[in-house]
Amino acid sequence: MGKGLLIIVSAPAGCGKDTVIEKLISGCSDIYYSVSATTRPMRKGELDGKSYYFISHGRFKEMIDSNDLLEYAEYVGNYYGTPKSPVLENMSAGKDVVLKIEVEGAKNVKNLFSDCVLIFLLPPSFQELERRLRLRGTEDEFAIASRILKAREEIKEVYGYDYAVVNDDLETAVDEIKSIIKAEKLSVKRGVKSIE
Amino acid sequence: MGKGLLIIVSAPAGCGKDTVIEKLISGCSDIYYSVSATTRPMRKGELDGKSYYFISHGRFKEMIDSNDLLEYAEYVGNYYGTPKSPVLENMSAGKDVVLKIEVEGAKNVKNLFSDCVLIFLLPPSFQELERRLRLRGTEDEFAIASRILKAREEIKEVYGYDYAVVNDDLETAVDEIKSIIKAEKLSVKRGVKSIE
Repeated sequence: MGKGLLIIVSAPAGCGKDTVIEKLISGCSDIYYSVSATTRPMRKGELDGKSYYFISHGRFKEMIDSNDLLEYAEYVGNYYGTPKSPVLENMSAGKDVVLKIEVEGAKNVKNLFSDCVLIFLLPPSFQELERRLRLRGTEDEFAIASRILKAREEIKEVYGYDYAVVNDDLETAVDEIKSIIKAEKLSVKRGVKSIE
Repeated sequence: MGKGLLIIVSAPAGCGKDTVIEKLISGCSDIYYSVSATTRPMRKGELDGKSYYFISHGRFKEMIDSNDLLEYAEYVGNYYGTPKSPVLENMSAGKDVVLKIEVEGAKNVKNLFSDCVLIFLLPPSFQELERRLRLRGTEDEFAIASRILKAREEIKEVYGYDYAVVNDDLETAVDEIKSIIKAEKLSVKRGVKSIE
């Protein structure tokens, strides 16, 4: 039994990454989902410690200073970071660890763990992305427009990722991510089980 | 819809590659299985045109001379080759093409199609491999011993492959190959669907 995989899932806002990850990890005890810390305000329906650890700017700075974060980055005016020790502990225990981080953070983690698996979630279309953001009802028109603009920029970063999964149908997207995880574990570059 | 994948499955004799491939392609109209030509005698239970095209040495030489083979190699005193045109036609039509070829042939195809996917099937153990060869009842003790020796040599070639799949349980092995195919199609290096 080898070390667990480190899997990074990135996506522009509105691509449904929370739902995809929730479905991926549900009933899957081999996968540990790393909850990020953020300074952004909690949204309706979110839970502290599940969606994110919602913390103050002061506390975030403390975590940076104590080297408690694997990576952190600023995104649309707020800070997001990955608490380090739970990631390292679960990987050592052979679990696959899923990080949900944006493109800058993904690059930082790739620099630290060159064999991590980078998955980019894409929306079926920009029209659908806009519809989903509007449906969420948590942001005003200005914020939606700026997220769409940001998404168009971010999507260009897919070429730095290993895999691109279109989240059109939830079940299909989750099944595709499971296939990626399975295939990566069979990949010879990660080592071959010796035959006696 | 992109071009189909070219998937090569190699395995030492007795690893169950025929059964695995048969199960993989059954009811899967998106996969074309390339039947190889061989000069070796037909075994009990084999069908001409399904297991192999069983042809004479003379005919095999003709195919080489007319450039009708994608690759060919000698293996344990017989010739094995891949008829070229059905492979190219099916790939162009967007189908995934599965080739069952030994390690030398696999290297030759990789040189022609650098983006082919190389899968190596491993037996769960050498003891189990010997048991399976004996069970097949098509070869004498000398042939079995020489196949085991050959298998020990061949298995070292796994490091030139992309993926290693252990054929312990048939369903699991087939499911793993399907995951590899799915994941490869999502891989960014093969291109990303553009989002409008």
